[in-house]
Amino acid sequence: MAEKQTKVEPKTLQGFMELLPSRQALFNRVQDIVRACFERFGFLPLDTPVLEYADVLLAKAGGETEKQIYRFCKGDTDMVMRFDLTVPLAKYVAKYYHELAFPFRRYQIGKVFRGERPQKGRFREFYQCDVDVIGDGKLSILNDAEMPAVIYTVFRELGFTKFKIYLSNRKILSAFLAGMGLGEKTALVAGAVDKLKKIGAEKVRGELLELKLPGEAVERIMDFVSLSGTADEQLIKLSTYLEGSEAFRAGVAELAEVIKGVRLFGVPDENFAVDLTIVRGLDYYTGTVYETFLDGFENIGSVCSGGRYDNLAGFYTDKPLPGVGISIGLTRLFDKLCDVMEHQAPAVSTVLVLSPDGQGTDACMNAAAYLRAKGIAAEVYLEDGKAKAKFKYADRLNIPFVMVIGESERQNGTVTIKNMATGAQREDVSLNEAVLEGLRNAAENF
Amino acid sequence: MAEKQTKVEPKTLQGFMELLPSRQALFNRVQDIVRACFERFGFLPLDTPVLEYADVLLAKAGGETEKQIYRFCKGDTDMVMRFDLTVPLAKYVAKYYHELAFPFRRYQIGKVFRGERPQKGRFREFYQCDVDVIGDGKLSILNDAEMPAVIYTVFRELGFTKFKIYLSNRKILSAFLAGMGLGEKTALVAGAVDKLKKIGAEKVRGELLELKLPGEAVERIMDFVSLSGTADEQLIKLSTYLEGSEAFRAGVAELAEVIKGVRLFGVPDENFAVDLTIVRGLDYYTGTVYETFLDGFENIGSVCSGGRYDNLAGFYTDKPLPGVGISIGLTRLFDKLCDVMEHQAPAVSTVLVLSPDGQGTDACMNAAAYLRAKGIAAEVYLEDGKAKAKFKYADRLNIPFVMVIGESERQNGTVTIKNMATGAQREDVSLNEAVLEGLRNAAENF
Repeated sequence: MAEKQTKVEPKTLQGFMELLPSRQALFNRVQDIVRACFERFGFLPLDTPVLEYADVLLAKAGGETEKQIYRFCKGDTDMVMRFDLTVPLAKYVAKYYHELAFPFRRYQIGKVFRGERPQKGRFREFYQCDVDVIGDGKLSILNDAEMPAVIYTVFRELGFTKFKIYLSNRKILSAFLAGMGLGEKTALVAGAVDKLKKIGAEKVRGELLELKLPGEAVERIMDFVSLSGTADEQLIKLSTYLEGSEAFRAGVAELAEVIKGVRLFGVPDENFAVDLTIVRGLDYYTGTVYETFLDGFENIGSVCSGGRYDNLAGFYTDKPLPGVGISIGLTRLFDKLCDVMEHQAPAVSTVLVLSPDGQGTDACMNAAAYLRAKGIAAEVYLEDGKAKAKFKYADRLNIPFVMVIGESERQNGTVTIKNMATGAQREDVSLNEAVLEGLRNAAENF
Repeated sequence: MAEKQTKVEPKTLQGFMELLPSRQALFNRVQDIVRACFERFGFLPLDTPVLEYADVLLAKAGGETEKQIYRFCKGDTDMVMRFDLTVPLAKYVAKYYHELAFPFRRYQIGKVFRGERPQKGRFREFYQCDVDVIGDGKLSILNDAEMPAVIYTVFRELGFTKFKIYLSNRKILSAFLAGMGLGEKTALVAGAVDKLKKIGAEKVRGELLELKLPGEAVERIMDFVSLSGTADEQLIKLSTYLEGSEAFRAGVAELAEVIKGVRLFGVPDENFAVDLTIVRGLDYYTGTVYETFLDGFENIGSVCSGGRYDNLAGFYTDKPLPGVGISIGLTRLFDKLCDVMEHQAPAVSTVLVLSPDGQGTDACMNAAAYLRAKGIAAEVYLEDGKAKAKFKYADRLNIPFVMVIGESERQNGTVTIKNMATGAQREDVSLNEAVLEGLRNAAENF
């Protein structure tokens, strides 16, 4: 079948992550941890199609988003590959509204696609891990308090202890600006303020001055968004601002309730903070917003963000469906932090069963079947070759135990089991003994 | 944000499975079982991109396959969505050849895309679950014996006991036909014979006659492929055919070794059989071939198929890379059999924590945090409403336990825990007691 002449170069598209098996095993483990956390909070699983009708998925897209989209026709059908998991959720909730129980709590972990200009650290195909709660008509603000608890749990379980979840409420800055008579510049001011962490106070001040704001207004804004102190101290300071504004007080009251709830849900004070510079670019957020920064890795930006939106599915249905959600861009996170998260990538097999001289392969096959029936991941080295090559295979794959069935074991109906990390071995034990004495425990710890 | 005027209908493309949450939970569980089986055999995980360069993925495609492919350009890049997991594997092994340990044992579970004419029970986006072993230059025939063990384990764990894995070896029929002087008609004859299970002996006989074979030759072929008896009896009968043909004997010897190995790997005799009509359409199979039929569901066709191929990646590399593999089309299998596999779909939350009068929501949030820290999936009913509506939510989602924090519990610092299936409840116990006495066990059994 192999053509002798021309070969096609086996290349992978740029911006599409493709991992070697041991890295892939680590990625899967990270993904499993995220999923297990989501499920521990009772979120229901969802798996929407990768392809959707273009007019359905692009109902509310436009501008930058639309340029990045993989869109094509097949026959008469105009289709797009999903570029996030939020629009498919909106479609799903509108479509199955009558069959869902509300509040509808769902998670989805899946690949999304964006044809961005490729650059280092940017992916065109990447996993998003999303959690959202959608209410039918209304949704308690306490749901906003649960999201930081989800974020906290996920990053703790991923092995991080030092990180901060920044909270704000968009209503506060909006009402503050409105109170200053700058209501019509809210989006522009918010956009500049949002960059404070990235570009620093001086540059933000410059951007605000470019918006033709009076110098005094710029200073008031800078002071306001730089409010420091603990969450409680900030809440107290906020309560002294603009006593007259109903909208302002409503925003502060929401933030106060969220902070109280975050504590009730078990998030320690050192892992969250109020930060009024958090705005989030997406224009559909209307209240609480979140960003998350890992200590020492602030340069990679927020690793988990989200917020509250008033109406998820307005393009599909008249039903008001408010929600709150968060999203983790797992591919980028893994790309940046896999070395940090590498608490020993798991080998997939716990045991490699081998016959050094190849004469005991039958017994090895039988032994592997026995181990698997006991729930222990096992494989047999089935190929011909020198004993050394067989052990080397276990080494390369990081398989922690080798079970040897050589001549003496064959005669005695026994096995020898070798711990590849320590070199220790137990010789001529029964298969059953080998399982009882440690392999099983070992398997559980891998 | 919601436009008052026109709404876009939230529709999903035809042939793209989209499930309600409880069904999705069951699907995920089925997929988890398949994955756990694959990992117990020591297969390494792989996750290749959904999109690939068209010239890379279509290197060996053509005809029917090519017509079904989702292919499009973005900028100068001509891309396709993967239509199986085998060609991406070929690319991967050729590309990373020097970084892989051989034999390379990998599994991949992922969506593939085929723009077929939509018809009932056919999907355009569906999950394939593939296992392959790739050798470097050569690969022991014993690997062919392991595949039925994988199939057996997967379907057993999915809850099926009555099913049959049919085995054959393409070399046998080819050599038989060559021995009759019909070598140049092998593909046509094999194609007809392959349909025996579907269309019956009479129609196959008709197709063979249409190939202008002499009536006597047709009868010899029909006799040959209809060899009955146990695997051992068939092997004995086969050994009496065409003593002179080296190729024939080689095929029979391989089949005999595979059958011996299948038993060593622990597959009971009632779950496999030899069937010489199994050919498999794909022309890259060169030796052992498999199909799997579930008793009582023969009409849905083979639920797991595969075989041995001489050279996986001939289009990408000069290195001979023989392999053997199997594939399960999980979406179709689930679509046909989810009712059969429904051994009670798991609820995602084990406990719904609620305050009947809404006054104890703070305590509920705290209790949920405690439960989650103990590894128990829990959620709080955070919305306002009547107690009845809160219990109804647990009912609709099939959440097995409700933890109630009402007025008396609040005063006593206790909780009441109700088993939703039996109606039994334990009143006024401490949170710790509630966890110790059953919830934890219950959680593990869900």
